[in-house]
Amino acid sequence: MNKGSVTILGSGSALPTYQNSPSGQIVSLCDKSFLIDCGEGVQITMRQMGVHTSRLYSVFISHLHGDHCFGLIGLISTLGMLHRTQPLHIYAHADLEKLMKPWLDYYCQGLSFEVIFHAINPRKQEVIFEDRTLTVETIPLTHSVPTCGFLFTERHRERIMSGDFVVVSQRRYAYCSDTRYSTKTADLIKGVDVLYHESTYTEEHIARCQPTMHSTAKQAAQTAQDALAKKLIIGHFSARVDDHEQFLKEAQEVFPNTIIAKERETFEI
Amino acid sequence: MNKGSVTILGSGSALPTYQNSPSGQIVSLCDKSFLIDCGEGVQITMRQMGVHTSRLYSVFISHLHGDHCFGLIGLISTLGMLHRTQPLHIYAHADLEKLMKPWLDYYCQGLSFEVIFHAINPRKQEVIFEDRTLTVETIPLTHSVPTCGFLFTERHRERIMSGDFVVVSQRRYAYCSDTRYSTKTADLIKGVDVLYHESTYTEEHIARCQPTMHSTAKQAAQTAQDALAKKLIIGHFSARVDDHEQFLKEAQEVFPNTIIAKERETFEI
Repeated sequence: MNKGSVTILGSGSALPTYQNSPSGQIVSLCDKSFLIDCGEGVQITMRQMGVHTSRLYSVFISHLHGDHCFGLIGLISTLGMLHRTQPLHIYAHADLEKLMKPWLDYYCQGLSFEVIFHAINPRKQEVIFEDRTLTVETIPLTHSVPTCGFLFTERHRERIMSGDFVVVSQRRYAYCSDTRYSTKTADLIKGVDVLYHESTYTEEHIARCQPTMHSTAKQAAQTAQDALAKKLIIGHFSARVDDHEQFLKEAQEVFPNTIIAKERETFEI
Repeated sequence: MNKGSVTILGSGSALPTYQNSPSGQIVSLCDKSFLIDCGEGVQITMRQMGVHTSRLYSVFISHLHGDHCFGLIGLISTLGMLHRTQPLHIYAHADLEKLMKPWLDYYCQGLSFEVIFHAINPRKQEVIFEDRTLTVETIPLTHSVPTCGFLFTERHRERIMSGDFVVVSQRRYAYCSDTRYSTKTADLIKGVDVLYHESTYTEEHIARCQPTMHSTAKQAAQTAQDALAKKLIIGHFSARVDDHEQFLKEAQEVFPNTIIAKERETFEI
């Protein structure tokens, strides 16, 4: 069976810090790579890490806050310089295509590959990508702009004696950022293998969650527990909290199998 | 007398590498800071280095290739989150304002400060900024899109016995990137204290200079020598050359007082 992994490119929130860059991560499943969110600097970190972009199949943008999409034009430009030929599929709120158009017109005339935008409705739970090996579904979230997470479900099939195929593995990975805590989220991702959930604040700053529509580490852990997840990765840390061990400590009190989304590290799914 | 310095935020060329990010540098003169070029990631590096943005007076963009301006929207967004109130002046080719408008309209409604674009004509040598303490002039360069460098001239004045002021210092810093080698450049920056000149290629790749309109390390050094510069900083290194010592070696054969624009380092002017 192929390995599944998630590589963290950025796990900060809106304001970059000395230890965190804006959001981005590579999900590798079934020999394909997918980029979730593309904050500024994501493609630079990919290059610094030597991430191979030739297997990058598509990009999923959770919402249009700058720390989740300002790096897209740089990524597309770099893929052009690397002579990519396969189309790049971008799944995002419809406004992104409108915003990108003047930049693509100015910078990407004669680009070696096609950029194909797929407008998604973040308010609706639905399958937005499906092939022989996996599906990707939206997870409606609650944030200050239309936002959804993404649920990756692998469909590993094996041929049995009769000659038919049966699904023997259904690894699942859920990405939930940015969002206010909601009990509904756990219902949508029940039994997930690995959950990445935003954890912008520690308990000390819980009062900020309501106006900014973010979660605490403890709330992320509560969602993991309610979803019966096997593992939780927390990220999207506020610049207000220097000590990331505090996020970990608070989350582990509720959900012990929690880890920090350390940038430039790869975790197994 | 106040110190003058240049801090290198990015000294790579179009394609980011494991050792170089896109162009950007902070010039500090007369208690003011100026950003020259703003490639993707420049504001993240500033934050990581703890560069104080409150003294950032204005931004000068040499040309509109992505590696010199894709980081501008992230910078403006971050300055807003830091509650900047003083206006930010951006000097660039007129197309930049048109490109930025839809993004500023979408992301920067109710921004805490004003963004003021000043259209410059890169083909003309002229003073584009002037105050009591310094002037900034354009240096027309030869590249595949309209491009200019910037010449900073300090005007440090002291009161003499008669009560009048006389200019006692005229420190000068020139930024020349991106450009094909031209003997004209040296004429425009005669006697400069520090010259930053692009050095995209080593001699091995000299054939690429003509089609891409870039310079070799040796050509950068020739310009420094012809300009009677006191010091040369070379940067904008191609992803094709791993060994930066090779750039240095070739430049020093022509102009011994050459140094490498190492990212995150600060050099005295």
